[in-house]
Amino acid sequence: MNPHAEIISVGRELLIGKVVNSNATWLCQQLTKIGVIVRRITVIADDLNEIASAIRESLNRNSQLIITTGGLGPTDDDMTLKGVAQALGRALKLNYKALKMIEESYLRILNKAQKLSSHQVKMAYLPENAIPIANPIGTAPACLLKINESIIVCLPGVPEEMKQIFAKSIIPLIKEKFGIKIFQEKSFFIEGLREAQIAPIITEASRRFPEAYFKSHPDIKNGKPLIELHISSSKPGILLENISEIYEFLRKKIGRLGGRIRE
Amino acid sequence: MNPHAEIISVGRELLIGKVVNSNATWLCQQLTKIGVIVRRITVIADDLNEIASAIRESLNRNSQLIITTGGLGPTDDDMTLKGVAQALGRALKLNYKALKMIEESYLRILNKAQKLSSHQVKMAYLPENAIPIANPIGTAPACLLKINESIIVCLPGVPEEMKQIFAKSIIPLIKEKFGIKIFQEKSFFIEGLREAQIAPIITEASRRFPEAYFKSHPDIKNGKPLIELHISSSKPGILLENISEIYEFLRKKIGRLGGRIRE
Repeated sequence: MNPHAEIISVGRELLIGKVVNSNATWLCQQLTKIGVIVRRITVIADDLNEIASAIRESLNRNSQLIITTGGLGPTDDDMTLKGVAQALGRALKLNYKALKMIEESYLRILNKAQKLSSHQVKMAYLPENAIPIANPIGTAPACLLKINESIIVCLPGVPEEMKQIFAKSIIPLIKEKFGIKIFQEKSFFIEGLREAQIAPIITEASRRFPEAYFKSHPDIKNGKPLIELHISSSKPGILLENISEIYEFLRKKIGRLGGRIRE
Repeated sequence: MNPHAEIISVGRELLIGKVVNSNATWLCQQLTKIGVIVRRITVIADDLNEIASAIRESLNRNSQLIITTGGLGPTDDDMTLKGVAQALGRALKLNYKALKMIEESYLRILNKAQKLSSHQVKMAYLPENAIPIANPIGTAPACLLKINESIIVCLPGVPEEMKQIFAKSIIPLIKEKFGIKIFQEKSFFIEGLREAQIAPIITEASRRFPEAYFKSHPDIKNGKPLIELHISSSKPGILLENISEIYEFLRKKIGRLGGRIRE
């Protein structure tokens, strides 16, 4: 069984269209590659009740992995951990390991020890029993919580920090807990036909090759319809060893209608 | 009162990280500009139960405007309207206005009349009492449903089609129903300080200027911290007529700590 994940992206900048949610896309790519099925992405504002609701809803859907991004920093509107604590009915407590990580990060960045301000110390307040995870380039630690069969991972919103922590600390953990299953994909391009014309071919191909998931993406190139046909494992772990057989099937059907398929 | 909206993006390509959800970002920009507050973006797969659940949840949160993108096309995995119908307990019925729109779109594209295939006719099956909206460049009609005080708008996922329908048919409708309220924003850039140092300044500025919402976006430029401070109306309709006063306040506070602020 491939584990199911959800991503919860926190940040008003995403909801006013100031920032594209490329963090979620990157996480989806990484998770898909190692066989985790992302079932939902939820984007919410920096609002305590919204964050707490989103976490509770995701736990109620039995997500095995919940990843939040954003809202771990020093400013007052960084309140993801408070929202997570509220969702779990836990207190937010000063975590001394996290505090040490923050001190070390400022030492690394400024090259001298300094007394932390209250806004800096704030980043060390984690939900009870959370495990802090060091941030190798920024200052706000990430953290991880185990809730029955679910894992909640809270990552910073700064893309480079999020990516480094995820690659270094979270991927090994997921691989260990859930095992690795490969996800395969390949795109073909169809010229000379419209999407509605290839729809019955996709229906037939889906029945014939249930191990593959077919998705058409219609586009216009130089005034003519060009359809990308994306073929992927219907579930991670299912290998598409017969891709040349699938291609041959499509080539014949599409050719009969006067269209062309190419890689 | 500014209306609250939610966006529901349907498509597996978004959850495997193949496509960035730029549709949602574009919609957020357009909605914010005309005073609509986007409270949540939900991304789900082409799955009947997922679509129906997402619609029901959004209605339960009393969203005045629910916009879906994707899943209106001719292929079997285009099932957004079926999911909306399921959420509302309505039947999916052949809509003759929508059928005429589809016939006309193929006539426009192919320059000759043709008998529609079952996959083409499928795009004319709308939830009962839905109002079809013509697609000026593609073939799948959009549609609109009124549910008590809420409006559900279903748009295609192809970005150009989605944008044209939204700009031409949906923006005028929102303006008429909810009235126009302007949203203002401006960014300043702070050099020479770290985010934790400006956090207490933001706290103080937020108290002093409650009409403004302050959000810091830390970044690194040429190895040095550069913070974008984005200032926007705390709610659409509130004009930031005192932006020079806010700037002066920030300039003094930041200068005292040895930092610099610029436009």
